Amino acid sequence: MDLDRLAQQIRFVAEVDKLKNIFRQTLVVESRRPENDAEHSWHLTLLAIILVEHANVPNLDLLRVLKMLIIHDLVEIDAGDTFAYDTARMVDQHEREARAAERIFGLLPSDQALMLRGLWDEFEARETPESKFAAAVDRFQPMLLNCLTEGAAWQKHGISSDRVIARNKHIAEGSAALWAYASAMIAEAVAKGHLQL
Amino acid sequence: MDLDRLAQQIRFVAEVDKLKNIFRQTLVVESRRPENDAEHSWHLTLLAIILVEHANVPNLDLLRVLKMLIIHDLVEIDAGDTFAYDTARMVDQHEREARAAERIFGLLPSDQALMLRGLWDEFEARETPESKFAAAVDRFQPMLLNCLTEGAAWQKHGISSDRVIARNKHIAEGSAALWAYASAMIAEAVAKGHLQL
Repeated sequence: MDLDRLAQQIRFVAEVDKLKNIFRQTLVVESRRPENDAEHSWHLTLLAIILVEHANVPNLDLLRVLKMLIIHDLVEIDAGDTFAYDTARMVDQHEREARAAERIFGLLPSDQALMLRGLWDEFEARETPESKFAAAVDRFQPMLLNCLTEGAAWQKHGISSDRVIARNKHIAEGSAALWAYASAMIAEAVAKGHLQL
Repeated sequence: MDLDRLAQQIRFVAEVDKLKNIFRQTLVVESRRPENDAEHSWHLTLLAIILVEHANVPNLDLLRVLKMLIIHDLVEIDAGDTFAYDTARMVDQHEREARAAERIFGLLPSDQALMLRGLWDEFEARETPESKFAAAVDRFQPMLLNCLTEGAAWQKHGISSDRVIARNKHIAEGSAALWAYASAMIAEAVAKGHLQL
């Protein structure tokens, strides 16, 4: 057993506890408090397990999907959460997050730092069937929570349905079925007055 | 596409949002607020990915480990969290949780309900190498957070080191290396006065 290696891994595990303090615009349904990145990441993994049969490409590598979802927001420990409709903060988002990836993944032994960086790069590039499906789930979940909280985050920031559609339509690249479901959800939110036309 | 099936799956996904409101005795390190089951489950998946090389049995099925960790606390939506040292509430814990499993997994299409029930039963039985390692990670993480918060949950409930050892020593069945590390952590917590001898 390599005790130094294990100790280094545990330091990383302790550091990422901070993801529980990174809050998002989306609200948790029952208590209506802001959701944090750690519980968001957990929720995505459960969506992926249950909904993978609806991915456009059959027989996805679900293990790689789950790994991407588990680590995809770690960079926000340093870079903070960037709201999906905050175009000003999006300008340097990737640069901030890439710096964060260097530091945070760099806490690990180099082989594992490379593995996590590879997963994060794959998730960000959205070129593989696995990353397209992971990204679909990552976009679908906040829309679902918004719909279940009378459009709270949309209302707060005055987001209209055309922006929601423009921002989330790439769900279809991962799962046409999920995008069809999401489109119906958006229409229902508009009809209920929870989302501006 | 089976729209009824997808709609049923989404209802399940919405229901389990409630796991974010089930609070534990363990504190999140930086903000010192109680940790909830959803972020705890996420943290465990990351520990599993990083520490799987230290499992007693090589070449574990990591996908099954992750699935078990992702769903292992869902029953607490109905049954509530049972503190690891609350022997009174432990008397009927399994009965309460089995009822919860029936209802919560039962929200899914029957094939998926069976899959999740199978994973939960495997996790609870701790007979397979995967479930032993998953259980090891589930016990190690709260100890780590306790050590990083000056033994907050141990102090609050007057827990002594012999009870911590008795309750957590089965970590060794999943990972001898992790139990060795944990034993050193316990000794250090005692030395620092964060845990009663």
